[in-house]
Amino acid sequence: MVPDPTDDRQERTERAQAQLRERDADALVLSKGIDQYYLSGFLTPPQKRHLFLIVPASGEPVFFAPEPYRRQLEESSWVETLYTWDDTEDPVARLRETVAAIGLEDADRILVNQGMWGMYVLDLLNVVDAEFDVATDLLMTLRRRKSESEIDHIREACSITDAVSEEVRSLDAVGMTENELAAEIEYRVRKHGAGDRGSTQVASGPNSAHPPHACSDRTIEAGDPVVLDFGCSVEGYLSDQSRVVVYEGDPPAGFVDAFETAREAREAAIDAIEPGVTAADVDDVARSIIEDAGYEGQFLHVTGHGLGLGIHEPPYLMSGSYMDGGNELTIEPGMVFAVEPAIYDDEWGVRVEDDVLVTEDGTERLTHSDHSWQAL
Amino acid sequence: MVPDPTDDRQERTERAQAQLRERDADALVLSKGIDQYYLSGFLTPPQKRHLFLIVPASGEPVFFAPEPYRRQLEESSWVETLYTWDDTEDPVARLRETVAAIGLEDADRILVNQGMWGMYVLDLLNVVDAEFDVATDLLMTLRRRKSESEIDHIREACSITDAVSEEVRSLDAVGMTENELAAEIEYRVRKHGAGDRGSTQVASGPNSAHPPHACSDRTIEAGDPVVLDFGCSVEGYLSDQSRVVVYEGDPPAGFVDAFETAREAREAAIDAIEPGVTAADVDDVARSIIEDAGYEGQFLHVTGHGLGLGIHEPPYLMSGSYMDGGNELTIEPGMVFAVEPAIYDDEWGVRVEDDVLVTEDGTERLTHSDHSWQAL
Repeated sequence: MVPDPTDDRQERTERAQAQLRERDADALVLSKGIDQYYLSGFLTPPQKRHLFLIVPASGEPVFFAPEPYRRQLEESSWVETLYTWDDTEDPVARLRETVAAIGLEDADRILVNQGMWGMYVLDLLNVVDAEFDVATDLLMTLRRRKSESEIDHIREACSITDAVSEEVRSLDAVGMTENELAAEIEYRVRKHGAGDRGSTQVASGPNSAHPPHACSDRTIEAGDPVVLDFGCSVEGYLSDQSRVVVYEGDPPAGFVDAFETAREAREAAIDAIEPGVTAADVDDVARSIIEDAGYEGQFLHVTGHGLGLGIHEPPYLMSGSYMDGGNELTIEPGMVFAVEPAIYDDEWGVRVEDDVLVTEDGTERLTHSDHSWQAL
Repeated sequence: MVPDPTDDRQERTERAQAQLRERDADALVLSKGIDQYYLSGFLTPPQKRHLFLIVPASGEPVFFAPEPYRRQLEESSWVETLYTWDDTEDPVARLRETVAAIGLEDADRILVNQGMWGMYVLDLLNVVDAEFDVATDLLMTLRRRKSESEIDHIREACSITDAVSEEVRSLDAVGMTENELAAEIEYRVRKHGAGDRGSTQVASGPNSAHPPHACSDRTIEAGDPVVLDFGCSVEGYLSDQSRVVVYEGDPPAGFVDAFETAREAREAAIDAIEPGVTAADVDDVARSIIEDAGYEGQFLHVTGHGLGLGIHEPPYLMSGSYMDGGNELTIEPGMVFAVEPAIYDDEWGVRVEDDVLVTEDGTERLTHSDHSWQAL
């Protein structure tokens, strides 16, 4: 059961504490990053400093942080208790004192964010003789349904992405390298006042055949399908959109048919998303359209993924026909998905991706920019 | 004793193995990122996939990776043995089999990269009942002296940073927001063919008083000191440069004196760097100039840091007068430092940073762009 989403970070933290008690865990320890931001309001990029939000199963959460962060923590977070260490101290010794001061030295089970650096996990293991596990499921139970203000931020990020997508479609991209076109995208995103999501993908010609491709010095040629996969961030919340554009010339043989099949699969998947269906159901809808059209084995990833503070976050739209078991989680209002059925051939790929919000009876589309493969 | 640097990644790996044996460790396990790249040649951004380079103390290193990465691994790395898992398998079960297959199931001591995600460290702890520790010292023993080709990459990154620095100095920045000026910087970096280092800092007016500040929507005004701290990456190797510019109008009271003192401290620190002196000595030189000029407590960070695949990497130029103990490591040829004495006041800051290579008898400067605070 997913608690109703809330913008009140203190209330979110109380819900996290209820989840801790339900899971027989004594505390949640979060290093710098999006989970810490979600509960406390403090957001800064991960760095090599011991800076933890410690949430016991009951009682007040505290920050353990370097002294120079005091002002930022006080300004940004509702969490009032700070245990600080300065650069002349051993942070691990101070961490041991802090753990004792808040009564966690005999904890049996502690959950940590999955991306916490290994050095910090090993320090915690030295300080508390507890069983450690990742807090992903607990955190995503809270995070997967978005509140009104979270949705507003994602909506704004999607709207800026739409605007940049239309601008980039009109560029004279043949002769540019993938890196240059990525620079044009990121520049426009920043000029619109959004943050860079940090992973613009421009995959041209044969590079479009490989979903993990980012950007290279390859020069875009006439006839190249160019997959433009980018987004931006607003208050930490992300958009994620893909288009595939042929800037000049004729696309490769088979491309237009694949484009049409991927379009059909995407529209059917979005139509299938509504409260009560499972994530696996949605993947099945898209995957069977692609396979029935003769592209078996050419759709190399999941149909979609959750989107919020994380660019790829649960719930994943994946079925047993793609992964063992699939994802039987039931879709609920307030979830946000990026939906991206794709077809990859030996020398080209098609991926078009839209973001949708789950409403009470279906979806609302959040990305609207031109979907066609013709540049203009 | 630091081994001579080499560009041969297999030889680097053999040196890492010698270090493992010296430290009584059975294996080094590296998740995706710069250390894995340093030894194997494979570089991809960290992601939520179990993808490890496993280097036993003796014998062949192996990759443990998702099957879709096979092609990239084969193309980029000299490491021939791949244990892959596909999306229908439990990666932890496959990891257990792999650890057994390469004879590490009874290992006593395993070192991991400090930034390995906690979820992977916890998976490894479940698979091998060994003592785990971070490999930072082992890896930096290898990485801190740079090879000729590493130096070439850093040199190119510095040269592009110089060019962008000159371009940005001539912009009409008053009226722009910090984010907009950062967009101009990153766009130029990318257009010069370099990668974005991912952390451009534009700190204007009162924001320049806080070293951790990144960028905000604050509009740059006449009379603002604007700290521009940026760099770029070439083949993964980074540059790191700061300038402080007053685009229009008169700087705040006290700024010019502080600028001159910081300049003097920087030049003296660079002059002090040579093989045989300690990192602490260099910090002492800069710090005492700043303190003697009356700015005690206003130089809030170390004098400098190593630079290479990491933007802030050991050795740190820090003395007992800043940190307990300081860094008694002896400077050697082939190290690269970013040197950044700074002075922070209540409402403004001065930070000017240059990169230098340690030669046989001193240093070679790698960054040369205009150092003055006057825009043009």
